[in-house]
Amino acid sequence: MQIIQNESLSAIKNKIRQATEQTVDSVVVERVDQIIAKVRENGDQALKDYSQSLDGVSLDDFLVDQAIIDQAYNQLDVGVRQALQAAAENIKSFHQRERAESFEDRTVAGVVRGTKVTPLARVGIYVPGGTAAYPSSVLMNAIPAKVAGVQEVIMVTPPQADGLNPAVLAAAKIAGIDRIYQIGGAQAVAALAYGTETVPQVDKITGPGNAYVAAAKRAVYGQVDIDMIAGPSEIGILADEDADPQALAADLLSQAEHDVNARAILITNSLSLAQEVSEAVECQLLTLPRQKIARQAIDHNGFIYLVETIDEMIALMNEVAPEHLEIQLKNPDSYLDRIENAGSVFLGKYTSEPLGDYFAGPNHILPTGGTARFSSPLGVWDFQKHIQYLSYDQMALQRDADAVIALANVEGLEGHARAIESRGTVND
Amino acid sequence: MQIIQNESLSAIKNKIRQATEQTVDSVVVERVDQIIAKVRENGDQALKDYSQSLDGVSLDDFLVDQAIIDQAYNQLDVGVRQALQAAAENIKSFHQRERAESFEDRTVAGVVRGTKVTPLARVGIYVPGGTAAYPSSVLMNAIPAKVAGVQEVIMVTPPQADGLNPAVLAAAKIAGIDRIYQIGGAQAVAALAYGTETVPQVDKITGPGNAYVAAAKRAVYGQVDIDMIAGPSEIGILADEDADPQALAADLLSQAEHDVNARAILITNSLSLAQEVSEAVECQLLTLPRQKIARQAIDHNGFIYLVETIDEMIALMNEVAPEHLEIQLKNPDSYLDRIENAGSVFLGKYTSEPLGDYFAGPNHILPTGGTARFSSPLGVWDFQKHIQYLSYDQMALQRDADAVIALANVEGLEGHARAIESRGTVND
Repeated sequence: MQIIQNESLSAIKNKIRQATEQTVDSVVVERVDQIIAKVRENGDQALKDYSQSLDGVSLDDFLVDQAIIDQAYNQLDVGVRQALQAAAENIKSFHQRERAESFEDRTVAGVVRGTKVTPLARVGIYVPGGTAAYPSSVLMNAIPAKVAGVQEVIMVTPPQADGLNPAVLAAAKIAGIDRIYQIGGAQAVAALAYGTETVPQVDKITGPGNAYVAAAKRAVYGQVDIDMIAGPSEIGILADEDADPQALAADLLSQAEHDVNARAILITNSLSLAQEVSEAVECQLLTLPRQKIARQAIDHNGFIYLVETIDEMIALMNEVAPEHLEIQLKNPDSYLDRIENAGSVFLGKYTSEPLGDYFAGPNHILPTGGTARFSSPLGVWDFQKHIQYLSYDQMALQRDADAVIALANVEGLEGHARAIESRGTVND
Repeated sequence: MQIIQNESLSAIKNKIRQATEQTVDSVVVERVDQIIAKVRENGDQALKDYSQSLDGVSLDDFLVDQAIIDQAYNQLDVGVRQALQAAAENIKSFHQRERAESFEDRTVAGVVRGTKVTPLARVGIYVPGGTAAYPSSVLMNAIPAKVAGVQEVIMVTPPQADGLNPAVLAAAKIAGIDRIYQIGGAQAVAALAYGTETVPQVDKITGPGNAYVAAAKRAVYGQVDIDMIAGPSEIGILADEDADPQALAADLLSQAEHDVNARAILITNSLSLAQEVSEAVECQLLTLPRQKIARQAIDHNGFIYLVETIDEMIALMNEVAPEHLEIQLKNPDSYLDRIENAGSVFLGKYTSEPLGDYFAGPNHILPTGGTARFSSPLGVWDFQKHIQYLSYDQMALQRDADAVIALANVEGLEGHARAIESRGTVND
């Protein structure tokens, strides 16, 4: 890994900003617009046609039989099944703390003001097929929706000639997903956004996918809600001379192996640590099964920044705003207050980042590309909405009428003033 | 207003869905992309050029002097100023109830899991110029941001040859806005999203604007966060035979006067009420200053639906998912539980909708076009973000290592397993 020192903070900032700009492929956008139009026009028939032409699978029925799901669950390796169940429990107990509560305020005489918090009615989760089919992502998407109280959680996943991934089906059962349709790509997103004869319209679509899925989610945003469009995985590590270089290298590679565009950044004030981690990464790469992918990620977006002080380390990391942030410093908890921008923070020597990817309970669907400046992890808030309400009695309306009418007049909206006056506030 | 009866629920649903589809003007999108590129390239100079060519105002400095703001505040009509101050207090006290709180969970042995809730650092608010300059919108955008704890709230508004609207400047002072720049249109959105020599980059842009502003917000979404793209105003009313037709007509017109594309919908089970409201709307329109606008809105998107039962009334209104919903039925509070989709609900005879537009405290920036199915009013949640954190001790890592490794292996991500193993969990 490249070690960078003596670079100005602003030069580093610019490099970070440029590296994370998302580009849109207009050919993909055009193709996706066609697919969405076809699904809106022809419904299920369009889904069947695309399943045949794009996935090479001929289907009469998209719905996955409960018997197939149960079989996958029962035949799954017991250790894996128990690990999924334990992870699901942790994810559930963590996200239960996130629920927003309704409130009602009666502090103003004659006025009741409140907010009713309710779940979305129906949600769709996209789960990629093939080697990118991750049971952990099924849990991370579905469980917050269920904790929020969503009545119906629908999963879509591309049809596979040799059958769906059994670990994904088992995870869907454990997460309490209500229905699974074998539909993939932009056509699946269109079906969820607009509904077909078979697939009901949902209120929100979450989950990762390829460029077509991402473009389709962008296109239907507004018709339904979506989660953020996720970029490549990122890990940032703050470490000092006492950190274990082998563990840091392993953690950097755990994110680098996701994607050739993944980012792995170490910021340290120790030259010896920087050198040791750089060597450890090289050494560990030699035996990593996914070394081809991780190699490219490390070469293009793997950096070790060497700065003078811990203050500088933190300032720079707040600019990076990484998806995952490990703090491998003495008294790691003491720095949490100063972390302004990050998706999920991992504190101390034993808190290796994959604990969060799979098991501990915090979500692994996190803001990337610097969007941690303004975005949150996927959470219960993604599946709840707020409905305000207000009630005035006659006395309160009389009291406040003049103020409301004054404001309506200053905005030139006489119709607003008359609505207040129509209650007899003026001529009584 | 047109009275519609004996139409099937599904026919009505289709009409509603079609009426609210947003279309994008590709000419506007292309022009906006050019403007954004120019601002990114030339910074302040591009802002000056556009100010000259698009707004017809030549400016050396975009920042509005504090002396000008103070003067506007001091010279404002006392009644209007006091009304703005009282409204600001109500908005503040309501939104203080919305704050999400950090939590920390220690229920799993050896594990600390938590979420730190923090405000966004810097937010930009767009305020339209000319006759659409609404001081109430300044309060509604800025106060939730301030309640969330945003350090710096920046307002942008188009330069005006004859000076900025004094009520808007006074509202900005009352709301605690930190800086005001005289910049408008897509160029203002671009400046906030990317920063220039003068204008700092923000984390989120909120506030209404014309088609160019809306297209620019869409274009920079991802680079910064945005609020929803607002559609035309909407009011839905549920009323029975006991409701006051004059008051209902006045409330319908209070939203119709906003925009020729505004929607005003009454759903009732009383033919006589339907007829009386229809006549009252005609009569009140004759003397309304903004009758030209309201007339078009009523003609194109003003409907009275006559159905048999209150159950049908509620089911249909949940399909409409209106921005504003008035419940003018006996025991209005008893129906709140059954309202699934609405931005803000107004309960009972004295709760005229403009109370919410101006004064009572709930926000007036609300989901339109059916997006209340999945969106919330603007609130403190728009200006807070969540940062997860996790800490494992050695014993907890040993305990959970096998489960995490099993899940990493089933996903084919050996690098994740090795990160766990690198802590000596296997070979100790």
